[in-house]
Amino acid sequence: MELIFTDDYFMQRALQEAAAAFEKGEVPVGAVVVAQDRIIARAHNLTEQLTDVTAHAEMQAITAATNHLGGKYLQGCTLYVTLEPCLMCAGALYWSQISKVVYGASDPKRGGLSIFSQKDPQLKKGLNEASNLPLHPKTQVVGGVMANEATQLLQDFFAKKR
Amino acid sequence: MELIFTDDYFMQRALQEAAAAFEKGEVPVGAVVVAQDRIIARAHNLTEQLTDVTAHAEMQAITAATNHLGGKYLQGCTLYVTLEPCLMCAGALYWSQISKVVYGASDPKRGGLSIFSQKDPQLKKGLNEASNLPLHPKTQVVGGVMANEATQLLQDFFAKKR
Repeated sequence: MELIFTDDYFMQRALQEAAAAFEKGEVPVGAVVVAQDRIIARAHNLTEQLTDVTAHAEMQAITAATNHLGGKYLQGCTLYVTLEPCLMCAGALYWSQISKVVYGASDPKRGGLSIFSQKDPQLKKGLNEASNLPLHPKTQVVGGVMANEATQLLQDFFAKKR
Repeated sequence: MELIFTDDYFMQRALQEAAAAFEKGEVPVGAVVVAQDRIIARAHNLTEQLTDVTAHAEMQAITAATNHLGGKYLQGCTLYVTLEPCLMCAGALYWSQISKVVYGASDPKRGGLSIFSQKDPQLKKGLNEASNLPLHPKTQVVGGVMANEATQLLQDFFAKKR
């Protein structure tokens, strides 16, 4: 029997959410939250439709997942998101104490995670000492899952905008 | 004639919001958004009541202010908040392009602003180069306004909890 509940499987679902955002003229980013191999929340970027800069896919997915679970925290859950979370979303993930974050494409400009894994040991040390790493120390991070697909969607979107 | 619309005046309104949070058993943090000397949004922390870690005073105030204005951005607006914003809220304020942030008490543990004004020039340089400063480059920041009042509320809250 094949193991179907892989990171690719759930990232594919997040990419479907990103495609839904694309259709609405929103920057195509999608997310799902998974608990015990079950999707408990799905969301896509809605900043234009809601006229709300906080309506990123991750923020909505966190709120929906905690609503579903009836608790404030997402321990034991995994967030799959097509683009590296920004600082706002990374900060929200910290508060959620989520167990794992899997993202697709990196965001070198506004990504809130990669800055904290930069090569400069001084930078990393300073941030660790300030206890200000954006994610909870127990949160595991995996990047680059189906990154090409996520990047392609974003590139298509911005090419269409121009 | 006296100038009544000072930072203290609006921070006092944010403190009233914090007191409302206190009454509900929420960590007492309050915020107001001001445009042209008028309060266009007020909010307080509701993470317990809404079972939602993203329901910080600032997040709700940003959403309410953009709803009021009918646009995504808060240029020309000032946020008054009783406690230094965390990274999530700082990230949201970045996206809002708000013109000014005035906070009361500093949050050395989870504050999202003070880490970026640390004395270590290497740290600051690294972050600037990554274009990852949490706030928009045009956002002005003032800290320490009525900090004692904000701190007292928080201390009373946590003393009661123990």
